[in-house]
Amino acid sequence: MKNTLGTNVTLTLFGESHGTGIGAVLDGIAPGIPVSEEFIASKLSLRRPVGNISTPRVEMDNFVIESGVFEGHTTGTPICIVIPNENTKSKDYGEIRCKARPGHADFTAFQKYHGFEDYRGGGHFSGRITAGIVAAGAIAISALENKGIYIGTHISRCAGVNDTPFNDVQSNVKLLSQKAFAVLDDAAGEEIRKKIVEAKSQGESVGGILETAVVGLPAGIGEPWFDTVESLLSHALFSIPAIKGVEFGLGFSMADLFGSQANDRFLVSDGNVVTDTNNNGGINGGITNGMPVVFRCAVKPTPTIGKTQKTVDFINNEDTELKAGGRHDPCIVHRARIVVDSITAIVLCDILSGRFGTDWLAQK
Amino acid sequence: MKNTLGTNVTLTLFGESHGTGIGAVLDGIAPGIPVSEEFIASKLSLRRPVGNISTPRVEMDNFVIESGVFEGHTTGTPICIVIPNENTKSKDYGEIRCKARPGHADFTAFQKYHGFEDYRGGGHFSGRITAGIVAAGAIAISALENKGIYIGTHISRCAGVNDTPFNDVQSNVKLLSQKAFAVLDDAAGEEIRKKIVEAKSQGESVGGILETAVVGLPAGIGEPWFDTVESLLSHALFSIPAIKGVEFGLGFSMADLFGSQANDRFLVSDGNVVTDTNNNGGINGGITNGMPVVFRCAVKPTPTIGKTQKTVDFINNEDTELKAGGRHDPCIVHRARIVVDSITAIVLCDILSGRFGTDWLAQK
Amino acid sequence: MKNTLGTNVTLTLFGESHGTGIGAVLDGIAPGIPVSEEFIASKLSLRRPVGNISTPRVEMDNFVIESGVFEGHTTGTPICIVIPNENTKSKDYGEIRCKARPGHADFTAFQKYHGFEDYRGGGHFSGRITAGIVAAGAIAISALENKGIYIGTHISRCAGVNDTPFNDVQSNVKLLSQKAFAVLDDAAGEEIRKKIVEAKSQGESVGGILETAVVGLPAGIGEPWFDTVESLLSHALFSIPAIKGVEFGLGFSMADLFGSQANDRFLVSDGNVVTDTNNNGGINGGITNGMPVVFRCAVKPTPTIGKTQKTVDFINNEDTELKAGGRHDPCIVHRARIVVDSITAIVLCDILSGRFGTDWLAQK
Amino acid sequence: MKNTLGTNVTLTLFGESHGTGIGAVLDGIAPGIPVSEEFIASKLSLRRPVGNISTPRVEMDNFVIESGVFEGHTTGTPICIVIPNENTKSKDYGEIRCKARPGHADFTAFQKYHGFEDYRGGGHFSGRITAGIVAAGAIAISALENKGIYIGTHISRCAGVNDTPFNDVQSNVKLLSQKAFAVLDDAAGEEIRKKIVEAKSQGESVGGILETAVVGLPAGIGEPWFDTVESLLSHALFSIPAIKGVEFGLGFSMADLFGSQANDRFLVSDGNVVTDTNNNGGINGGITNGMPVVFRCAVKPTPTIGKTQKTVDFINNEDTELKAGGRHDPCIVHRARIVVDSITAIVLCDILSGRFGTDWLAQK
Repeated sequence: MKNTLGTNVTLTLFGESHGTGIGAVLDGIAPGIPVSEEFIASKLSLRRPVGNISTPRVEMDNFVIESGVFEGHTTGTPICIVIPNENTKSKDYGEIRCKARPGHADFTAFQKYHGFEDYRGGGHFSGRITAGIVAAGAIAISALENKGIYIGTHISRCAGVNDTPFNDVQSNVKLLSQKAFAVLDDAAGEEIRKKIVEAKSQGESVGGILETAVVGLPAGIGEPWFDTVESLLSHALFSIPAIKGVEFGLGFSMADLFGSQANDRFLVSDGNVVTDTNNNGGINGGITNGMPVVFRCAVKPTPTIGKTQKTVDFINNEDTELKAGGRHDPCIVHRARIVVDSITAIVLCDILSGRFGTDWLAQK
Repeated sequence: MKNTLGTNVTLTLFGESHGTGIGAVLDGIAPGIPVSEEFIASKLSLRRPVGNISTPRVEMDNFVIESGVFEGHTTGTPICIVIPNENTKSKDYGEIRCKARPGHADFTAFQKYHGFEDYRGGGHFSGRITAGIVAAGAIAISALENKGIYIGTHISRCAGVNDTPFNDVQSNVKLLSQKAFAVLDDAAGEEIRKKIVEAKSQGESVGGILETAVVGLPAGIGEPWFDTVESLLSHALFSIPAIKGVEFGLGFSMADLFGSQANDRFLVSDGNVVTDTNNNGGINGGITNGMPVVFRCAVKPTPTIGKTQKTVDFINNEDTELKAGGRHDPCIVHRARIVVDSITAIVLCDILSGRFGTDWLAQK
Repeated sequence: MKNTLGTNVTLTLFGESHGTGIGAVLDGIAPGIPVSEEFIASKLSLRRPVGNISTPRVEMDNFVIESGVFEGHTTGTPICIVIPNENTKSKDYGEIRCKARPGHADFTAFQKYHGFEDYRGGGHFSGRITAGIVAAGAIAISALENKGIYIGTHISRCAGVNDTPFNDVQSNVKLLSQKAFAVLDDAAGEEIRKKIVEAKSQGESVGGILETAVVGLPAGIGEPWFDTVESLLSHALFSIPAIKGVEFGLGFSMADLFGSQANDRFLVSDGNVVTDTNNNGGINGGITNGMPVVFRCAVKPTPTIGKTQKTVDFINNEDTELKAGGRHDPCIVHRARIVVDSITAIVLCDILSGRFGTDWLAQK
Repeated sequence: MKNTLGTNVTLTLFGESHGTGIGAVLDGIAPGIPVSEEFIASKLSLRRPVGNISTPRVEMDNFVIESGVFEGHTTGTPICIVIPNENTKSKDYGEIRCKARPGHADFTAFQKYHGFEDYRGGGHFSGRITAGIVAAGAIAISALENKGIYIGTHISRCAGVNDTPFNDVQSNVKLLSQKAFAVLDDAAGEEIRKKIVEAKSQGESVGGILETAVVGLPAGIGEPWFDTVESLLSHALFSIPAIKGVEFGLGFSMADLFGSQANDRFLVSDGNVVTDTNNNGGINGGITNGMPVVFRCAVKPTPTIGKTQKTVDFINNEDTELKAGGRHDPCIVHRARIVVDSITAIVLCDILSGRFGTDWLAQK
């Protein structure tokens, strides 16, 4: 399916960094979901460069809803959102065209597209393409919130600094929805920003770990083979540039536990079946058990750095060097957070619509 | 798509632990791939219980190839393999039917299937279902080897004991294909077995980490959105029971590196573009770069343990206790290894057939 | 997806005419649908050769439900049904191996599978493979009948003889479920049988037209693009061997009407919106309008005939002649009827499960 | 998959008649296919209203290629084409909102989308949406022509008047590419136009039959189950509004033939295997045999007519009457022709790319 994700609710992405426009088609969302351009814009603002974080003013992004929304609600037909590309100066890319930026997709794109790829600014591999995910994801988030399902992601670790772990997940998720820089502990947030600035001054970049929780999901969604909730989420998450690891619940830490430590014991609380711990991240056998779904994504440091790096000229097949000019992100962890929220929302809308039918998301 | 995985090469799984039979349909594999029942049996033997490891004799498993193989080769039509269930004594499951084994899918299955699930022995959630993956995977492995592509998985860590990391990946992969207990360092292997026996004696179970390398893959396969090689592999891997984390290359360790440390520098070697390190696990922008694809899977400790555990009776909605009777695996890490190899092979056949066409895998 | 049909409810077919076994995997059917082996056997009996028509005794076919059924109900997991091949004498096919039977798939199979195809008895192209559709379809038919949805197909025309058209569709459909030879007018049925016997005696075969009606479908299912009800049904129907045309409602006859003649006028009857005519076959804009869904399939005469035919030896690339030996069907129209019912049922289960959710089919 | 068609090459449609814009995303097309905006515009001009037929001037349509095209070639990434809606006067639709136009999707859309549908001008069901198919199809047509594969559709019958049947298919297809009004016999074309004008003057509309031939397709593409060439084409064709029947080769006429008449005899001609007749429309067992693929589509008369029609008010659930005001097409057969060509091209690109790999279409 390539650039289309999902089965019942699908997301199709298109666009190149320096082409005419980028965007997304979100299809299969129930008719009757309220759509607010302000809400979409507020989500898009969360993935803008770090300088905007301190700006309390939410600006309207320049996006166009071409279809699928009528009188403020989803119609049930495909929603195409186009985000025109601007500020794409037609500078001369000739010099760097053939130099593979280490850690980037320049070389692999050339292998795949044989030189026909739009290489300018990363083309179809650019992080900018995630804006389409965020715009579409805002509608998916609205749909889930209509059903009492909430998603929150925080910067669990960045530049070697840890945020407070989730404690009261329900309220943590609520808190995060109000934060531009997604940490639970603002002091840790300050420390992280300081480290990012420091890395930048040295021509370096840093990575981190994003931790996400979803609350309000019903038990019994997902499939044993092969569409486990873990499978569907990881499929989507691993297509976000820079994500190199995904784990659910305790994830890799479970490898060192004994069974009696790893197992979450079931108990009846207020008439409902819950678990005492949530080491399995709300998923047993690929299917939700009603506890919060919790997962973590490893984000590698941005590959574009200020330092000179050895690399190849892949057209002339020879060794060379590369020094990135211009602006580049010393860190994308905090910007990736809303992308994770958005794609998670879209995947969950897909699973829920498949399980409960086309109209479910819009039902009161 | 539920129990069907893939686009051009697909795997459909079926079966319950105590039903008539389990198995798989592998569809879309090129016509002309040699199929050896001995080879399939040898792969199946690798996922048998640990007692068999010391047996040098490869026994024929009791599987039936119903279709898709003719005169020792794939025909290009669906290959259905049925593995009859045996030794499924019709003992009384009534007592444990309503008790949710902690860490297992009993409760979530009940939420999903409303009590119609075949609960005996884990039903469709049983690890036994992976035998279908292995049988089909053996054919996929044959197909890949025909093209010079080899997969090897070792027990990177288990019960707190580390195996030697991959060093010369090419020869490591070759070595692993000859090992029943998949460690690079046999002394570590002995230590791991000892720890497993120890855990068992205490009514406990242990987990671990499997590390996989694929060598010989061409550069330029995979998609930027959403079918990255990471996405497709993780989708499949996360449907293997007990896998709770997947990372590529350095994975979560990348979160703490600077960009200059994480980036793999390209260089020309013998006329080919390679990288000096392989921190990205052979994948840039979701697409292979020609280096070995390397990933790691976290395997949680087997949830069934000998100790008494608190849990619920989910039919009567009340707290209760559970003590597992009979045999259970104190560790499945070593058995999961061939499942990882197999599903990886199937996913790669799918990607390669989509990229190069239906016949490619069988071409000399 | 090749040998897998559907999105939420899927059917995967496997098998060759002279292989070990044929069968189907039906996945995604709601848990809790009653499954009767007798009912499956009775449907399978309807596609047996014409000699069986006069036998009032319903024999149990030799099929095995490997999975997905427990205590007489669907579990919600994949249902694999295997039908072992019998009476496949290992006669020498060498002589006819390279001769393309006119109207058959021998030559195209060779082009596609490069000689690795199991050519014996038509292999994977054999009409026998439709037995898997019928076995799986019986379960889908049960599921639909649980919701008050009934399907009936009659031989609208065969060997130049017309059956009575549908008049009271509801009761016609009921009547057809009791008929082994599916005509509304038994006199026409006798005439058709006579013509078939006549054709056979001349070494000839005949074709015909099957007309199907589905009653009880809710309005509002199907998609405008591209999964119209017509699209999904025709996709499935055109994979039944020998079907060369599909039309809905008046179909090709509409080409000659004026708009005022073709349009079905809406009116309110007993509080429900209905149409006065049903020229559009119950579908407007790809979506059901609540009237019976009616369509017709053209079945070509069986290509295997008793007469000597000119053809090619496609291995030696030279002209030759072919005379079919042994038994062959002079007509498959009456046998195809249950295949049409079955695949229609499976497609409708898919559409309905996608629209109303996984559990809907089993709900009372 | 709803509004997305295809597996390896996919088309996603979006848009409403009176929304901001309509369009399509074409994904999976090989990198390196030349893209000409003039060629796209020329194809779009063929589906414009009949008044334009006599205009020899090819106007540039107002479409925007947002992505996937760089320096005049496909990049291999998704091609999004947006066609802004113009002349969509915000007139008051209140009066007709609740009246179901007979033969139209107003009522079924309401059943499906619960009143949230954009009902203005047919919304997502409007024939206007096919412009997206044509724009994307132009690129698919270019890709196929690069490989020597040509598609041509003529008005086989319209308003009761027959065009000459295909005779020399190869040259017929070539001829049709130069015709704005797609008939082989211009006299028949004149007669058809006269009949259309006549019907219009009586407040009526007419239908017809489109016949399509594809030349240059290799033998051996398509699948036996379920993705036969007939299945995939009919799936796409039946989603074109007004198409109610699809037949391949002789189609429904085969029902009345004897086997010896229907079978196409194979023979060797100039070293190639061909057939003497082409009654099966170039397809045996769902797979191409190298002869032209020929099929016919029944197009119903446009449902919107000038006459007053009885219908219902589906919101107030009562009988009423409707008289269409303003402009409407008395016939869409001639305009649908390029839509058939376009969707056929897209389906064939999908099949060919799956069979021969991602790059095949662009290879010389």
